[in-house]
Amino acid sequence: MITLAVDAMGGDAGLSVTVPGAVSFLRRQAEVRLLMVGDEAALANALSAAGAPMDRIAVVHAAQVVEMDEQPQSALKNKKDSSMRVAVNQVKDGLAQAAVSAGNTGALMATARFVLKTIPGIERPAIAKFIPSKGGRMTLVLDLGANVDCTPEQLVQFAVIGSELVHALYPGAGSPRVGLLNVGTEDIKGTDTVKQAFKLLQSSRLNFVGNVEGGSIFSGEADVVVADGFVGNIVLKTIEGSVRFLTTEIRQEFQANLLTKLGALAAMPALKGFKNKIDPRKFNGAIFLGLRGVVVKSHGGTDAAGFAYALEEAFHEAKADSIARIQQGVAEQLAFLTEKKIEAEQAAISID
Amino acid sequence: MITLAVDAMGGDAGLSVTVPGAVSFLRRQAEVRLLMVGDEAALANALSAAGAPMDRIAVVHAAQVVEMDEQPQSALKNKKDSSMRVAVNQVKDGLAQAAVSAGNTGALMATARFVLKTIPGIERPAIAKFIPSKGGRMTLVLDLGANVDCTPEQLVQFAVIGSELVHALYPGAGSPRVGLLNVGTEDIKGTDTVKQAFKLLQSSRLNFVGNVEGGSIFSGEADVVVADGFVGNIVLKTIEGSVRFLTTEIRQEFQANLLTKLGALAAMPALKGFKNKIDPRKFNGAIFLGLRGVVVKSHGGTDAAGFAYALEEAFHEAKADSIARIQQGVAEQLAFLTEKKIEAEQAAISID
Repeated sequence: MITLAVDAMGGDAGLSVTVPGAVSFLRRQAEVRLLMVGDEAALANALSAAGAPMDRIAVVHAAQVVEMDEQPQSALKNKKDSSMRVAVNQVKDGLAQAAVSAGNTGALMATARFVLKTIPGIERPAIAKFIPSKGGRMTLVLDLGANVDCTPEQLVQFAVIGSELVHALYPGAGSPRVGLLNVGTEDIKGTDTVKQAFKLLQSSRLNFVGNVEGGSIFSGEADVVVADGFVGNIVLKTIEGSVRFLTTEIRQEFQANLLTKLGALAAMPALKGFKNKIDPRKFNGAIFLGLRGVVVKSHGGTDAAGFAYALEEAFHEAKADSIARIQQGVAEQLAFLTEKKIEAEQAAISID
Repeated sequence: MITLAVDAMGGDAGLSVTVPGAVSFLRRQAEVRLLMVGDEAALANALSAAGAPMDRIAVVHAAQVVEMDEQPQSALKNKKDSSMRVAVNQVKDGLAQAAVSAGNTGALMATARFVLKTIPGIERPAIAKFIPSKGGRMTLVLDLGANVDCTPEQLVQFAVIGSELVHALYPGAGSPRVGLLNVGTEDIKGTDTVKQAFKLLQSSRLNFVGNVEGGSIFSGEADVVVADGFVGNIVLKTIEGSVRFLTTEIRQEFQANLLTKLGALAAMPALKGFKNKIDPRKFNGAIFLGLRGVVVKSHGGTDAAGFAYALEEAFHEAKADSIARIQQGVAEQLAFLTEKKIEAEQAAISID
């Protein structure tokens, strides 16, 4: 039985999304229970109204709520009894295997980092997300905005935690292929930071497939694509924007005239299948990676179905015992890199 | 009458694409003539086979061809009689108002920069492209890969040349709205370079609308979106990749079974309209901006229809007398910024 802690007050709509989302998730997954964190009275009402299966739900009271536009530092200092903080505390105290929140991203990251700390060897947590790619595959892309400036070493750390997460979730699929997001596939491409990260990744034990371009996120040629948070965030928003743009354009074409409208009726099964495949709600759930606990961030403006997918994401990671695996993988990978570095330094000394 | 110089040997397929592309372009545009640059005998054959209108075509012989994988510096040094170089020379010598090539991007940029030089005040040329956005609009995005590292001042220069190009092409549309590509809309977002560029853009005379996110490329909220070449190139490839991915997914849904296949038949008019709207060939033609002459780079792997669109792009810029306008605009904008800077320095001195 997996236990997830849910920040029930987070997100643009709070309880009216998190509670029905939680209920629909519980109906889908049997081997899970939820700690719903928030205002006790309001939660009791909302859960009862939604006909929630109370045998798998416990309510944990939290008196405060972090505002969507609140500064992370202010939330950290002044909202110690917020639904967000208390939900993350459940993970720290071992009462839940993962926390999920649709609240303020910056505050959640600051809280998660402060409460849970990073995995030894990981300087900074990253935000990661699975993006659908060719042939029904998924590509994990990170960092999506937690770290605007990154050192080559931090990019390598992201590669390691991304690779270990995918390996934990799909243990039978072999060593995940890791690509470095760049402006071309040749070694000499990119900024100095990226060039240095390339060299480090090449000498690592990761299944490094080299530089990949923006289009490779969808081609399925890498399982993990690594970038700094500035590039990653812009790429993610560009993908979301282009999906919105293209689906709007298709809709407009089908609304052009009577003939195309009739065509839309006949095309309904295929169009529904397409819509379902690329439904952004299904890819809701950004993973805060590199922490000593699973934290998943739902989109703040999602609906109940989208929130249920974020819970699903957290459930799979908790079930795969991803943190223990990532922690072990990081230790091994970084020990290997350190050894390589010492060898290189000794070689340099003996040449002198 | 506008004259365009065409590197007839450039691109993956050379003459077999450039000649039919040129012919179809000439059929569409009456007030233009072409200087077809390349091997004289081969060109004469290809033009005659394509039934080219020779009253508006002159062949300019060039004995060499720049290879698609040739190093830019090698092309610059060893291929002084290449079709690419001779085509760019036509612009420098005032014999053509624009040059178009589907050849090696790096070599074309090096050649164009060496032969034509940058506009006074512009340190480095940028690569720009119009991306389709909401409501049939277009967003000019730059730099798309010419400059992996940029200073804040260079980002401002890109903003100026992008804005002046759009203004030259659409003089009646008011001052183009310029956005700075970033990870959020707040002033405090982004890398140090981007933050400094933000401040400079705010004090400029441009119609600066502030930071924009990746999705804004398609939303129509900015006419020009500025980024360094590292981010810009990754964004462009991501857009191309997501369009390919989504169109493949739609096709697959329509091929799922008999019902969806019948649906596809009925949906044909709308699907064709959609395909036509987002046809990448229509957005072929990357603009090398900041040079003292119009140079347009066609995709190396495009077909004749795509190459004709690149010629179209060059034609519109030449017709709008874009270089003269950009040159004047740059002088005014940069003079204003310099004045601002001196004022700020004097204010600082008087405080001391």
